[in-house]
Order: sequence, then C-alpha cells, then structure tokens
Amino acid sequence: MTRLFPSSQSGQLVNLDRLDAVLAVENVDALVASSPENVTYASGYWALSQWIRRGPQTYVVIPRKAQDRSAVVASTALLDLLADQDVWVPNLRRFGYFQMDRAAGLLSSLDEKLLGFFGLPDDGTPLEALAMALTDAGVAKARIAIDELGLLPGDWEHLQDLLPNATLVPGSGLFRTIRAIKTPEEINRLRYVAQAAEHAIQAALAEARSDLTEIEMARAFHRKTVESDCQPVLGCIGFGPRSAMPNVQPSDARLVEGDLIRFDVGGRFKHYRADIARVAVFGEPSAKIKSYHRALHRGVQAALEMIKPGVKAADVFARAVDITRREGINHFARSHVGHGIGIDGYDLPDLTPTSPDIIEAGMVMCVEAPYYEIGWGGLQVEDTVVVRDDGIETFMITDGRLRVSP
Amino acid sequence: MTRLFPSSQSGQLVNLDRLDAVLAVENVDALVASSPENVTYASGYWALSQWIRRGPQTYVVIPRKAQDRSAVVASTALLDLLADQDVWVPNLRRFGYFQMDRAAGLLSSLDEKLLGFFGLPDDGTPLEALAMALTDAGVAKARIAIDELGLLPGDWEHLQDLLPNATLVPGSGLFRTIRAIKTPEEINRLRYVAQAAEHAIQAALAEARSDLTEIEMARAFHRKTVESDCQPVLGCIGFGPRSAMPNVQPSDARLVEGDLIRFDVGGRFKHYRADIARVAVFGEPSAKIKSYHRALHRGVQAALEMIKPGVKAADVFARAVDITRREGINHFARSHVGHGIGIDGYDLPDLTPTSPDIIEAGMVMCVEAPYYEIGWGGLQVEDTVVVRDDGIETFMITDGRLRVSP
Repeated sequence: MTRLFPSSQSGQLVNLDRLDAVLAVENVDALVASSPENVTYASGYWALSQWIRRGPQTYVVIPRKAQDRSAVVASTALLDLLADQDVWVPNLRRFGYFQMDRAAGLLSSLDEKLLGFFGLPDDGTPLEALAMALTDAGVAKARIAIDELGLLPGDWEHLQDLLPNATLVPGSGLFRTIRAIKTPEEINRLRYVAQAAEHAIQAALAEARSDLTEIEMARAFHRKTVESDCQPVLGCIGFGPRSAMPNVQPSDARLVEGDLIRFDVGGRFKHYRADIARVAVFGEPSAKIKSYHRALHRGVQAALEMIKPGVKAADVFARAVDITRREGINHFARSHVGHGIGIDGYDLPDLTPTSPDIIEAGMVMCVEAPYYEIGWGGLQVEDTVVVRDDGIETFMITDGRLRVSP
Repeated sequence: MTRLFPSSQSGQLVNLDRLDAVLAVENVDALVASSPENVTYASGYWALSQWIRRGPQTYVVIPRKAQDRSAVVASTALLDLLADQDVWVPNLRRFGYFQMDRAAGLLSSLDEKLLGFFGLPDDGTPLEALAMALTDAGVAKARIAIDELGLLPGDWEHLQDLLPNATLVPGSGLFRTIRAIKTPEEINRLRYVAQAAEHAIQAALAEARSDLTEIEMARAFHRKTVESDCQPVLGCIGFGPRSAMPNVQPSDARLVEGDLIRFDVGGRFKHYRADIARVAVFGEPSAKIKSYHRALHRGVQAALEMIKPGVKAADVFARAVDITRREGINHFARSHVGHGIGIDGYDLPDLTPTSPDIIEAGMVMCVEAPYYEIGWGGLQVEDTVVVRDDGIETFMITDGRLRVSP
C-alpha cells in the first residue's frame, strides 16, 4: 500500500499572527500550553505520555512578539519524539532522568540532535523547568496566561510560588479563540480525516447483511480507519432502536430488515479530529424515517447555505432549527447545531441559540442536525466544512441524504 | 467474523474488599473517582467525553462499607452509556441539559431505564451534583479522598466551599494502591489484550520485505489490533537505528537487510491496557545483536523466575540488572525493569531500585529489559504476567527471544 497523504512540508499548526493579536487584546505577555491538544497545537510536539494518561506534564511557552524565545518544556523520557518531529519552537528545557547509551562512531543528524538534547541540564521538576523557561523568555514578572486544562490541583499555586512577581491568568479560553481560525496545514489534515471517516462508513456499510452485529460492522469501520493511517476515536454505530442513543457503542445487537444504522464517527489524523454523521436503512425505509431524515438534511443544507464570514452563529442555529421544523419534524428541538473542530473535537464557533460567535474565514466546523427518539431510533446529518471568503468549501464527498443499504 | 472474546458476565472491575481495607487504613470515609481510568474502574461506567478530551467531568462516589450508597455523577448527555453498560453502582446524580424525544407506545427495558435517568432532576454543575452525591452518601462532614487527576485547577477549592465541614484529602494514590490487585474480570481483559498485541506483532512481521516503510508495517499492526476489537494506543515501531528511540513513531523509513525491528506496543480491550515488547531482525542478525538481545532475555527470565508473593520489587530490579550485565551487556543501566498494568498503563508495583513495593498475588505486571543505543539501535524484551500464589502465570504466547524475519 502507498501512503495516502503527502508528507507535511513543515506545515505550522499554530496561527502565530492570531496568537499575537489575541495576547495583545488580552494584555497578556506570554501564553503557556499544558493540555495535550494545546501543546501539540502550539509547537507541533506530540508528547506520547500525556496523550494516553493523566498526570505526565509537557508545556510550551510562547511570549508575545518574541517567538524566538519560545520554549518546549519536556520530559527527558520523551526527547526522542521532540528530535524526530516537526517542531518549530527553538528552545528546550528538560526534566527528569532517562537512560540512553551511545554507539561509537559517526551519528546521523537526528541522533546528533537527540544527543544534544540529552546534553542539556536536568531542570528538576516539570514546574521548576517551566518557571525557568518563563524566566528565559523574559516574562517572570509579567502577565502570563496558563492553559489550565493540563494542570493538576496545586500546580497553579506552586508555579505562582516559583514566580512570585508574575501575574497568572487562565489561558485555555485564549487557546480556544486562537485555534478557531485554522492554518492551511490544519485545514489539509481536517479535510483528510473527515474524508477518511466517510470512506470508513462506506466500508462498514458494505458489510451490511441480516444478523450482522454492531461490533462486526464497527470492526470494518475501524479497519478502514487504520488503513487510512487514522487513529479510531469516536465510533458511535447503532442499529434500530439503539440508534436513538446519542453515544451508542457497538454491541452484539444484530441487524434486522428495516433497521436504521446511525454513524456518529471520526478518528484522528496527525492528531486532528473528525466528527461526521450519516444514516442508512437496511432494506426499505418507513415513511417516518424518510420524511424525518429529509427534514434534518434540509436543515443542515439551509445552515450551510448561509454560512460565510460575518454571519452570526446564533442565526445559523435559528435557521437550521426553523427549516427542520418546517420540513417535517415540527417538534424539533436542539441545544446546538454544530461546533468548530480541529485538534480538539469542540473548537469555536459554537452554533447555539445564544452564541456570541461571528463566522470568520478559516473556521472549520461541523454542522449537524441529530434527532434522538427513545423507543424508535436516531437520525443525524453532520457535515464538516471550512469557511472561505464567499461561503463554505465542504470536506464531504457524499451528501447527507438517507442511504438505503444494501 | 465472530466475536473473539466471550461476553463479560457482569464482571466487576473494582476490588471492593481491598477498597474498604485501604480506606480503613487511611481512615477515609469515602473515595471519589474523577479521572477516566478511575471512574471506569470504580463503577464500570465508560463516559466517552472524558476519555477523548480534557475538561468534561464524571465522578463516582464510594463510601466505606456502605456500597449501596455509592453513586455515579454523570452528564445528562452521557446517560445513554450509563443505561447500556454494566455498572454496579446503584445511585445516580445527573447534571446538564440534553434533548431527547420519546416514541409513543411500549419501550424496551433499556429504554425504560434511560427514560428513568432522564426523569431525575438536573443537579446543576458537575461539582454541585458531586456535593449532593456526597451528602446523600452521608459523608458531607466526613473525611473524603478525592482522585485529583481528573479535577481542574480551582475544583478542589470549589468543592470545599460546597462542603465546608468535609475534610478533603488526595485520593489518586489510594486508587493506585487499590488497583494493584486485580479482580478475575480484570485479569481476563489484561490477558486478552496482551495476547492481541502479540498477534498483531505476528501480523506486522508477516509483512516484512525490503523497502517496506515503518508506517506500512504499523498499518498491518493496527489492522490486526482493531480486528481483535482493541483500540490502538501504544504503537512504537522502529527500524534500524531508529529502533533506539524509546518512543519511536512509525515514519517513512524503509526496511533494509540486517535492520532491527523493535515493537513496544499495546492497545486497549474493554478499556484495559497492553504494553509488551518484541524484537526481530530482518535477515541475518549481527553478533552484537544476538549477544545483547540474549542478555536482555536472560535478565527478564531471571526476574520472572523469582517473582512470587512476598518478594521485594527492588530485589527483582537488582536481579534483572545483574543477570543482564553478567550475560553480555556489562554496562547495562536502567531506572526500572517493569511496572504494574491495568486500566492505566502504569499501575503498582514499580520495579525500581528503591521501590518499597512487595509482590502480591493478583498483581499484573510488565517485566522489561530495554536497551537503547543512539546510533546503533534498540532492543527490548517485555512480558506481561499475573502473580499467582506460587509464582507467575504468563500471558505471553511467544517468548521474548530474538526473531529472525522472514
């Protein structure tokens, strides 16, 4: 098999111009990432341990308008990934011990880089190393926004003790604002992973037959996901009345003629998320399925048609709900009809009735109309699109119409 | 395809007798889970959102010797999973709004249960709902250990404000102590997922040929992983000098005659982790590869031979290092030679030189001897075993000897 996606050309994930602008508006002198999503977003550095467990710490420091003083603060045990990945941040503080041996003779440039990292001093605890990185960056007495999502109770106070003259303010909201407008590399990844999810739905539906279990269909879905070099993340696949469960996890339930099959799914590709939904019927759809699903599809289409820079997110919500009601589900109610997506599954904008967000070019968002009826079933249309100057560019290769399978 | 693992018979994950004993020793009246691992461990409840993002909150409250007053504290958006899963905890507090519709007519028992959950009052914020659950459990003025790994900065203080007469102490260490001795259901899951990782290594090595890339081999590995109903988690696969990177992530590097191929891998099965390592050579192994790998294998074997209840973890460390040195890597150095494994990848015991841990029956652990030489390559043997009364029962279906491929 060949690699499906062209190698990245050192594409930057973080939107640095926007970062500087947001820090200026908030009067913040430096931003610190601590959660896995924000660490990878800010630097390109994917530090395995913090992605698969709670507890391990990694940080990225980016001072405003002084990006040459940015730093990664990393565990010594994870320096190999830092050496091998596409990380733009020029400085490093490391903490902790890890045993590595060294061969005699010439080394590759990668090995030289790694050895250089190991040659740096051990800066103690993660928070001590972070305090040093902030001091190096010249912001020890300044206003620092800290992404609080990766910190543990007590860390905030401990960092304040280490930097008594710094003013610490919460930073995860700033990251969310910055991440809302995607860079070209982010858009490429998000397009790829959304389409990989569609291909995986096709592969799963190709297995449809009487008595197939949800787990068996999910297996085909995940097989196609990993063949596309994506990591399985969201895999809600439900048959018949089980499709009414919003987060339905595949079970031993078997497919029966007339069953709905609802997919709310998406993996990660190079750390970026997909979240799309499609519905099929096994055999002949009932009149209710056809009319309800058509109403949801029209609702999403109406929302997509109005999305362009300058439009209010709350107006998109109102229109999607209004059209879905008028087109056939007159009791349709929702708390949102979509959300941004990126390295996190819930980026800005929020498509809610009270959202203050204004649509901007470069936003990537999921627009959705789900309907969950306990005792009957669930229907859902969810597309992912990027906002361009004159409207949307869809990432979808299939439309959200009801499918009939086989 | 058929389901590979027999359906669970309502097997409990949490070791409740041990929980009561640990809480008694620590003089704690109730334990609260907040991290995804501890929530699922304590209750059986897998609350999707907290597993794939930082921020979403779920809690489990277990009072000492009053398990009928235990409670899950869950987001309304995730009640479907609670209804559909094997959760032993008898009480529920829910928070937040989620729109669900209801079909006319008779409902299944699952749907009735879900509807019952939705009929409960909305208890406000996650922490308010938690405070109510603790009050219901009769511990509002007692000593409560809170797993701090799932909390965000400020949550601890906020909970203390809501329960001014409670004494809050950190709880994640208590969970780690409780989780160290596995229940039969946990052991079954851990055996299955370890063996699934071995099968996936075999499937990956079957692809070995000149010019194959690491990514292509990883694709075969992950395909087999998902066909075994496991979720890919740890996938360190490196060729040649890249195998020296402890956390090596698959790249476009191509396989060349004489290359080492190092796997340090393992997925999740029903939330339980695998972490095993095997090494192969593509073509003829060099004398150094053979002698070094044999030394590591002997080191692990010597450790496994001495493991039984009552043995000191630090003695296992000393023996593994000593034998590896004597058998061929005389400069061998390590900070640990293994660790427990369960729903988290790093459970007790810690096999380190200063570990205070004593081996007990029912512990499941990874015993490993890795060797990373920058500029040359990496070797590693890592087995997973359960401790029985008279020694170990290995989960491995292949031994850790060097493989020659094809």
